[in-house]
Amino acid sequence: MNDIRGLLGTAVNVQSMVFGNMGETSGTGVAFTRDPSSGENKFFGEYLMNAQGEDVVAGIRTPQKIDTLQKANPGVYDQLCHIREILEKHYHDMQDIEFTIQEGKLYMLQTRNGKRTIFAWLRSQVEMVEEGLIDKKTAVSRVPAAEFNKLFAPILDNNYIRDLGLKEATHGLNASPGGACGQIYFTAAEAEEAAAMGKDVLLVRTETSPEDIGGMAVSKGIVTCRGGMTSHAAVVARGMGSPCVSGCGQIHVDEIKKTLEVNGQLLSEGDYMSIDGFTGAVYAQKIPVKPSEIMQVLEGTMNEKESTLYQNYSKFMGYVSELKTMSVRTNADTPSDAHHAVQLGAEGVGLCRTEHMFIGGKRIISMRKMILADTYGERQIALSELLPMQREDFIGIFRELKGLPVTIRLLDPPLHEFLPNDHTSRHEMALQLGTTVEAISKKINALQEFNPMLGFRGCRLAIVYPEILEMQVRAIIEAAITVKRQGVDVHPEIMIPLVGIYKEFNFCKEHAEAVIAKVFDEQGLKVEYKIGTMVEVPRAAITADEIAKSAEFFSFGTNDLTQMTCGFSRDDAASFLSHYVNDPDKQFYPYDPFQTIDFDGVGKLIKMAVGLGRGVRPGMKMGICGEHGGDPKSIAFCQSVGLDYVSCSPFRVPIARLAAAQAAIAQNASK
Amino acid sequence: MNDIRGLLGTAVNVQSMVFGNMGETSGTGVAFTRDPSSGENKFFGEYLMNAQGEDVVAGIRTPQKIDTLQKANPGVYDQLCHIREILEKHYHDMQDIEFTIQEGKLYMLQTRNGKRTIFAWLRSQVEMVEEGLIDKKTAVSRVPAAEFNKLFAPILDNNYIRDLGLKEATHGLNASPGGACGQIYFTAAEAEEAAAMGKDVLLVRTETSPEDIGGMAVSKGIVTCRGGMTSHAAVVARGMGSPCVSGCGQIHVDEIKKTLEVNGQLLSEGDYMSIDGFTGAVYAQKIPVKPSEIMQVLEGTMNEKESTLYQNYSKFMGYVSELKTMSVRTNADTPSDAHHAVQLGAEGVGLCRTEHMFIGGKRIISMRKMILADTYGERQIALSELLPMQREDFIGIFRELKGLPVTIRLLDPPLHEFLPNDHTSRHEMALQLGTTVEAISKKINALQEFNPMLGFRGCRLAIVYPEILEMQVRAIIEAAITVKRQGVDVHPEIMIPLVGIYKEFNFCKEHAEAVIAKVFDEQGLKVEYKIGTMVEVPRAAITADEIAKSAEFFSFGTNDLTQMTCGFSRDDAASFLSHYVNDPDKQFYPYDPFQTIDFDGVGKLIKMAVGLGRGVRPGMKMGICGEHGGDPKSIAFCQSVGLDYVSCSPFRVPIARLAAAQAAIAQNASK
Repeated sequence: MNDIRGLLGTAVNVQSMVFGNMGETSGTGVAFTRDPSSGENKFFGEYLMNAQGEDVVAGIRTPQKIDTLQKANPGVYDQLCHIREILEKHYHDMQDIEFTIQEGKLYMLQTRNGKRTIFAWLRSQVEMVEEGLIDKKTAVSRVPAAEFNKLFAPILDNNYIRDLGLKEATHGLNASPGGACGQIYFTAAEAEEAAAMGKDVLLVRTETSPEDIGGMAVSKGIVTCRGGMTSHAAVVARGMGSPCVSGCGQIHVDEIKKTLEVNGQLLSEGDYMSIDGFTGAVYAQKIPVKPSEIMQVLEGTMNEKESTLYQNYSKFMGYVSELKTMSVRTNADTPSDAHHAVQLGAEGVGLCRTEHMFIGGKRIISMRKMILADTYGERQIALSELLPMQREDFIGIFRELKGLPVTIRLLDPPLHEFLPNDHTSRHEMALQLGTTVEAISKKINALQEFNPMLGFRGCRLAIVYPEILEMQVRAIIEAAITVKRQGVDVHPEIMIPLVGIYKEFNFCKEHAEAVIAKVFDEQGLKVEYKIGTMVEVPRAAITADEIAKSAEFFSFGTNDLTQMTCGFSRDDAASFLSHYVNDPDKQFYPYDPFQTIDFDGVGKLIKMAVGLGRGVRPGMKMGICGEHGGDPKSIAFCQSVGLDYVSCSPFRVPIARLAAAQAAIAQNASK
Repeated sequence: MNDIRGLLGTAVNVQSMVFGNMGETSGTGVAFTRDPSSGENKFFGEYLMNAQGEDVVAGIRTPQKIDTLQKANPGVYDQLCHIREILEKHYHDMQDIEFTIQEGKLYMLQTRNGKRTIFAWLRSQVEMVEEGLIDKKTAVSRVPAAEFNKLFAPILDNNYIRDLGLKEATHGLNASPGGACGQIYFTAAEAEEAAAMGKDVLLVRTETSPEDIGGMAVSKGIVTCRGGMTSHAAVVARGMGSPCVSGCGQIHVDEIKKTLEVNGQLLSEGDYMSIDGFTGAVYAQKIPVKPSEIMQVLEGTMNEKESTLYQNYSKFMGYVSELKTMSVRTNADTPSDAHHAVQLGAEGVGLCRTEHMFIGGKRIISMRKMILADTYGERQIALSELLPMQREDFIGIFRELKGLPVTIRLLDPPLHEFLPNDHTSRHEMALQLGTTVEAISKKINALQEFNPMLGFRGCRLAIVYPEILEMQVRAIIEAAITVKRQGVDVHPEIMIPLVGIYKEFNFCKEHAEAVIAKVFDEQGLKVEYKIGTMVEVPRAAITADEIAKSAEFFSFGTNDLTQMTCGFSRDDAASFLSHYVNDPDKQFYPYDPFQTIDFDGVGKLIKMAVGLGRGVRPGMKMGICGEHGGDPKSIAFCQSVGLDYVSCSPFRVPIARLAAAQAAIAQNASK
C-alpha cells in the first residue's frame, strides 16, 4: 500500500485498483488532502453518487459530499483517508486526487499537487513544516510570491454581493488588488475636501496625473476610464496599496456636471460605488469592505491569538528571514508609509521621493513661489520656507526607521508638474502668490516640454539651481542630527537622481558636502552619511566605472532605465506594448517590461553597471528602487547579478522578502 | 641666412637681427606670405612708418603698405621678399610675420602659421602642393573641415550693407550659414502660398515644428524667436542648407495681425528682411544675395574656367578622394536633394526619410485618410492611394543615384505629427475627408502622447499596422524594378527604424520579404536588396549581436541614440544643456552632444554594437545617419570604430568627405 505506483492508475485499468468491496456505493470523486481554500489539515472534496456512470467530476468541490460518503460507506471513506495520508507523505505536498467507486469498490484514478488560495498555501506549508513533512526551504520555495499581496488587501464582502444578487455595473483592469467602497468624486481637490469631512471617497477620473496625488492618497479606491496596468493611476495605487480598477472605457465622466454615465446608468458626485481590485469589477452600490486579518493584527485592532492566518504568516516570514540574503527596503515618502513598511519587515528605505513632500497643503504654495522666482534671492526666500517642512518630514521618517538606512532622492520631476493646468487653479495661485495669471501662464509655457521624461529634471535642476539641492541636503542632515540627539541611530543616504555623466554627480556631491560640513560645524555634531546615485539613464550604466569613483552606492531606477533603454514611455506604451506582450503571434517581450525587468536588454545593462561599478569600488552597495523591486521574477534577477537590496512599495515588502528568499534558495541550489 | 633661428628674435635683442643699413626708413610691420583672404601667392601686409617708436602693430592689414615700402626702401623690401620665401620653405605653410625697421635696418621679430579664410586655405594648400612645397596629405589634413561649408553658402552683399550704412535690426544664433533675403511670412502655409506665387520668402516663426517642413522648404531663409543651435528649425535648416538665424528673442510675432515687432520697429507680412546665417545678423531691409561661386559652377550658371575658387576646390577634392577610406553618403528625401548631394560627391543615400514624402499637397490627404481609418479595409484604400506617389519618389531618387546604394527608412514619426493642430486646419481636413471635426479631434486626442519621442512610432507602427510597411516595401521594390528596366543599376537598402529587440526586426523583415517575393513574381524581374536596421534605441546597441543575426546592415541613428542614452530630448535640452556645454564652471560635455558624438557615452555604446554585430556577421556594413554624420570630430570617431560610411545632409557632403580623409590620415599616422 506504500507503493504509490500501485495506488494510481487510469480509468482504463481500474481493475488493478480495487481496494475491496465496501458496499453498493458508486460514483466518481475529486478531493483535496487539505482544504484548498483555508489550507486547514482536513479532508476536503466531493463524491457524487452516480449509478449511471456519468462523468460528474467537474462539479463544485464542497466538503459536504465527503461527509456524505462517510455516512454512505464508512469503509471506503476510511480507506480514502488512509490513502490521503500515504499520498501526502510520498509527495510532501497537499494532493488533488481523483477516484471512482464502482459497486462499493474504491479505485484511485489520479493525483497531483493541489491548487489552492494563497491563504491555503501559507497554512498548509507552515503546518507541513511543523508536522515534519517538509523543511523550511521547501515551504518557502513553493508559496507563489506573485499572489502574496492578496493576504493584505481589504476585501469586498462577497456574501453581501451574493445575498443581494448585485451585478457589476462595468468591468476594468484589476490594476491594484483589494476591495473599496466610497462616495464618488471626480477631481482630486473635491476628493480631498470630502475626505477631510470624514467621508469614504472613491476617486473616479478619466485618467490621473501627478497633480492628483493628494486626492488619490485620501481615497479608499481609484477608478480610471483610461490607462492600463502601468498607467499613472495603476502604478501609484499599487504603490499606495490602494485598490484600483483602471481602463473602464464604459465609464464617461463629466467633471463640469459632476456626474458619470456607465452603461446607461447615471451617477452623481457623492453617490456610492464599490470596486474589486482583485477582479476589476465595479459596482454602482455601497458594499461592505473588510480589512485583511493580517493588517488588523499589525494595526492592533485584532489580537494575534485570534488570527490563525496571522500566526501562520508570522511563522512563515520567520523562515523567509532565515533564508534570504538580499535586504528588502521600501519606497516610502512619509513617516506613515515608512511605519507600515517596517511593520511588514522592511529593512530600510530604498527610495524616499522628496517631490511628494512639496505637494499638498501650504507646501505647494512655497514650492510654486520657488519656481516662479526670477532671482536667486527670491528663490532663497521660498526655499527657506520649504526647509523646515522638509526637515520635519525627514525627522519623522528617520524616527520610524530606528537606525535602518534611509535613501533620500533629491528633487526629481520637471518643475511644471508642480504648476496647475487649469485656469481656475492658476487664478487661485495668482491670488496666493500676489502675482498675475499671465505671469504664471508665461512661466508654465516657458517650462512646457515636448518630452518631459527627457527634460529639465533630476540632477539637472540641482545643477542649474544648486540652492535647491543645498536646501534639501541641509534639511536631511539637520533632521538626522536632531534624531541622533534624541538617541535614535540614523543612516541617511543622499541620492542624486538622473545622473548621466560622472561630472554631474561630482558637481552635486561637492555642493552637498560643502553644506554638510557647514551643518556639522553649526550643530557641533556629526552623523554618518553616504552620497550615491540612481542609475536610470543608460549613459550612467555604460559609464558606471567613472561614476563609481565618487559615488558610494548605486540604486537602479529601473522604471526610467527601462523607458530610456527600450525607448518607450510608460505613459504612452499601451498603444503598442499590448501587441508586444499579449499578442500570441508576436510576444516580443515575455512579460510587460514595466512589471518584470527586461533581462536581455535592461538587465544586460544592469549587469554591466554592477561589474563596472564594483571593478572600481569593490563591494559597492547596490540596489534597485523601480517598480520592479516588488516583482518576484525581477527580484530573482537582482539576486543573480549580486545586488545588495531591492526596494518596493510598503505593501509589496512581504512579497519581496518571500521572492528574495526564493531567489536565494534557487541560487544556492544551482551552485 | 638659411638658418631660421638667425632670422628671428625678440625686440629685446634686435641688435643681433640687423640685416644691413638700407636707408632712413623706420617702423614696425606685419605681413602674410600669401593673401590671407584669397590665398593668392602674393606678399600681403602692412608696414608703418613710425619714427617715434610707437607700437602700431595692431593696425589694419592692407597690401598697399607693402607697396609703399617697396617705393620707400626697395632694398629692405627685396630682403623681406627673400626672407618670405625662406620662411615658407622652412615651415611649409603660409607665414604671418612681424618685423621692424630701425633707421633702415630690417629686424625680424616673429613668425607663425598664418590665420586665413577658408577660401585662402583652399587656394594656398592647392598651390603649395603644385609648387611641391607640401604633399597632398599635408594639404588635406590642414584645411579646417568645420569651416568648409562656408564655401557653398550664398552670401549677403556686404559692400551693399557698408555702402548704405545698414544696421542690424537684431541678432540671433548663426544656426545655419548663408545669406538670405525675402518677404516675411509668419506661417508655413502662407509661406508656401507666397512662394507658389514666385515670391522670395523668409519664414519668421516663434518656433518651427514638423508641420512647417513644407513652408521651410520653399523659404530662402528661416528666422525663429525661440530655440537654440539644435532646435527643430536649426537642424532642419542645416539639413536643407537654408540659412537660419534662431533664438531671436527680441522679435515678437503676432500671427493673427500678421506683424512682427523688433526693438520698436513694426514689420508686416510681405515686408522685406535679410539674414546672415554666418553671423546671426538680422536686417529689416532688402539686401542682395549672391550664390557661392562653387554652386554657380555646379549648377551650370558659371563656367568653371571663370572660377579659380572652383578649380582649386575641384583639385583639392581630388586629393580628398584619394586619401579617404570611409564612404560619404547623404540624407536625402527627394530626387532634387539626391541630385545636389551626388554633385557634391555623395557616394550613396544613407538615409531617405519616407515620412517627408507623406507631407504636402494631396499626399497629406491620403495619409490622413489612412490614419483616420477604423478598419484594415479603409486603411488599405488610403494606402493604395499613397503607393503610386511613393513609387514615383523612389524612381526619381534611384535614377539620380545611378546604381549607388540608397538606404530607405520606413515610416518613423508618430502619426499625430501628420494631423493638424489648429481648429481651422481640422475643419478643412474634415471637409476634405468627408468626416467631422469631432471625429478628427477624437483621433488626435487618442494619438496624443506624453513623450512622443518614446511613443508609438518607428517599427512599432509597422508591427501594429503591417500593411503600412507592406505598401512602402512594395513601392520601393516596384520602383527599383522600373528603374532597372530603364537600364539603370539600382541598390535599395530597406531600413527598419527604432528597433529595440531582434524580434521586432525579424517580424518586419519577414513581412517585407513576403512582399518582395510577391513583387518579383508579379514583375518577372528581381533586383538586389538588403534589409537592415537603424541602431538608435540603446537596447538595440546592447543586443546588437541578436539583431545582427538577421539584419544585413546597421545605421547608427545618433540623434535618437543620444537622446535616449543621455536621457535628454533635443527639443527640450536647451534649458540645461547650455550650462553643461558653455558654462566654464561646469563643462560636463566638451561639445554639444547633439553636434558632436558624446564619445565616452554614446560612443562607447556604438563601439559595443559594432563589436557585437560584426562578431556575429563579420564585415557587416555599418554607417551613421544622424546629424553627427556631418560633424568632423564625429567623423573621426566613426573612422576609429571602423564604420564603413557616414551620411549627412547634401550640403555637408564636401565637409564630411574632407573630414573622412583627415580621419584616415590621422588614423594611419597613429598606427
